[in-house]
Amino acid sequence: MKNIFTNKRIFDASTAASGGFVWNINRDKVVTVLSPATVANMVCGFDVLGFAVEAPYDIMRIQFSNQPGITIINEDDFQLPVEPEKNVAGAALLALLAEVPIPDIGLEIRIRKQIKPGSGVGSSAASAAGAVVAANYLLNEPFSKSDLVRFAMNGEKLASGVKHADNIAPCIYGGVTLIRSIFPLDIVSIPAPELYVTIVHPQIEVRTSDARSILKQNVLLKDAIKQWGNIAGLVAGLLQSDYALIGRSLEDVLIEPVRSILIPGFHEVKEKALEVGALGGGISGSGPSIFMLSTRRDIAESVAQEMKAIFARIELAHHTYVTSINPAGIRVIES
Amino acid sequence: MKNIFTNKRIFDASTAASGGFVWNINRDKVVTVLSPATVANMVCGFDVLGFAVEAPYDIMRIQFSNQPGITIINEDDFQLPVEPEKNVAGAALLALLAEVPIPDIGLEIRIRKQIKPGSGVGSSAASAAGAVVAANYLLNEPFSKSDLVRFAMNGEKLASGVKHADNIAPCIYGGVTLIRSIFPLDIVSIPAPELYVTIVHPQIEVRTSDARSILKQNVLLKDAIKQWGNIAGLVAGLLQSDYALIGRSLEDVLIEPVRSILIPGFHEVKEKALEVGALGGGISGSGPSIFMLSTRRDIAESVAQEMKAIFARIELAHHTYVTSINPAGIRVIES
Repeated sequence: MKNIFTNKRIFDASTAASGGFVWNINRDKVVTVLSPATVANMVCGFDVLGFAVEAPYDIMRIQFSNQPGITIINEDDFQLPVEPEKNVAGAALLALLAEVPIPDIGLEIRIRKQIKPGSGVGSSAASAAGAVVAANYLLNEPFSKSDLVRFAMNGEKLASGVKHADNIAPCIYGGVTLIRSIFPLDIVSIPAPELYVTIVHPQIEVRTSDARSILKQNVLLKDAIKQWGNIAGLVAGLLQSDYALIGRSLEDVLIEPVRSILIPGFHEVKEKALEVGALGGGISGSGPSIFMLSTRRDIAESVAQEMKAIFARIELAHHTYVTSINPAGIRVIES
Repeated sequence: MKNIFTNKRIFDASTAASGGFVWNINRDKVVTVLSPATVANMVCGFDVLGFAVEAPYDIMRIQFSNQPGITIINEDDFQLPVEPEKNVAGAALLALLAEVPIPDIGLEIRIRKQIKPGSGVGSSAASAAGAVVAANYLLNEPFSKSDLVRFAMNGEKLASGVKHADNIAPCIYGGVTLIRSIFPLDIVSIPAPELYVTIVHPQIEVRTSDARSILKQNVLLKDAIKQWGNIAGLVAGLLQSDYALIGRSLEDVLIEPVRSILIPGFHEVKEKALEVGALGGGISGSGPSIFMLSTRRDIAESVAQEMKAIFARIELAHHTYVTSINPAGIRVIES
């Protein structure tokens, strides 16, 4: 490996996956990333729409190691596994390393998770996507964003059994993203206007597999039509900064009626949030977190107050976040 | 009626439906409209997306009459009924007149249809929408576009038994329109880039009611997800002038596989059109017409040649149109 450890950064339009990349590594580089929480499904966009938020986020630091393979050091209290093949960040990094033609390469990653696993705001996606984005930057960006999504999906597969990208894609691309297709992967960035996000995480466990198993495999065509009218309206509203249209389109006639049963207080949270001026919202991912979108920070703050009051009354431990849509996704800091 | 027949045109922000309109009529006014064909469903936008084209169109001329009520004069060979309640233009005009507070008003409409009934390109919508847009202009625009859609839907109900707006809305609004919701009516204009349209109308009969009855009432959730990923991609592609994304999103996994069985040559037309460079396309409305979208007129012309060759070979009488998306919808000419 000796001759490739230089300081020189070579930019090349080609990615490693398509060939032509010149591998050129600075052994002393250290990369830190802030990998944000994400909201998947986005009401009428089940399985296809998601967005990144500014907070919470995980902090991950990656550097080269003399130890070949992946070394994981957890700097939080979640007691996640450190064996790479059992850790979502590790599984994603292994998929990436499999396409790096440098023998005996070693990476050490320190993870300080701040996004609680199982909260429904893309905790595993933040780990998987953050790890591969950090590694890509460490390696001087041999891979495209689309490659990184592909690698990170291996982390999601480990976490939920399914290679899905609806948290991964917004985490990596930022803003609102559409996964038009998984096979072949087709990710579309949907530029969104300024939007504030209130998230409440009630401290109950909703397993993704349970949330998925209660869904019916068949739906009425007329309900599906309503749903695709709404997603079309939502995309048009986002792209044209039409807040009223965004609000009208944030309606889910298929998934929410089934899944909301698993979340105490759901309907009251939604009703009160709309009363104080939120545009709309719903279940974040497969829950139990609930998110609401607002045009202004003060409205988003009022929504948080309403959420707190409701969960205090039903005596359910909870945590709220007032944040905004994160247009950039994972932020990279080279030190 | 005597005191309201003046030449003065009074503009008022309020529409008649919301009150406050000053009724003020010029008895000598004659209004002619060109009411265009429309393509409903738009592949992945079943029941919610449609667009207007430049040709073909119906020509309709409306004026006041001394005879109270609606007088219909057909100037074509389609032998459509002239009794207002049995004629789609008449039914739409009756709905409009019911909200005009002028006693014993009479309207005479001359209709020269050029859009063949039953062709699947919104022939009945052109009649219904053209009639009420013309009447609204004759009356100095008391009604909003949304009111006009509401009136014209009575024509569609007469034609197909269902109050649908997916041809009416693009006919009146122009361009590509989304019917996000029918009850309450929510129409969203989707500004589209320059797009050329090739339409082939094979001379076979596909009744809307038959085309509807062969659809399954239940669909697989996974297919519905694919469909709403595609409509989201199509709307994003249209709004961002991303032709490649438009092309990739023009995919219908639900309706086309069932309905295309009713249209001989369908799959070959689609395959050949893509081969010569079309972006994509599908069944127009409930058929039997097939439409294809292209970025350039010469490609749209090549598509027409392929369509002609296919239907000539299977010996099916047909008619082709090479046109473009009509951004304005119905054109009004005052004489």
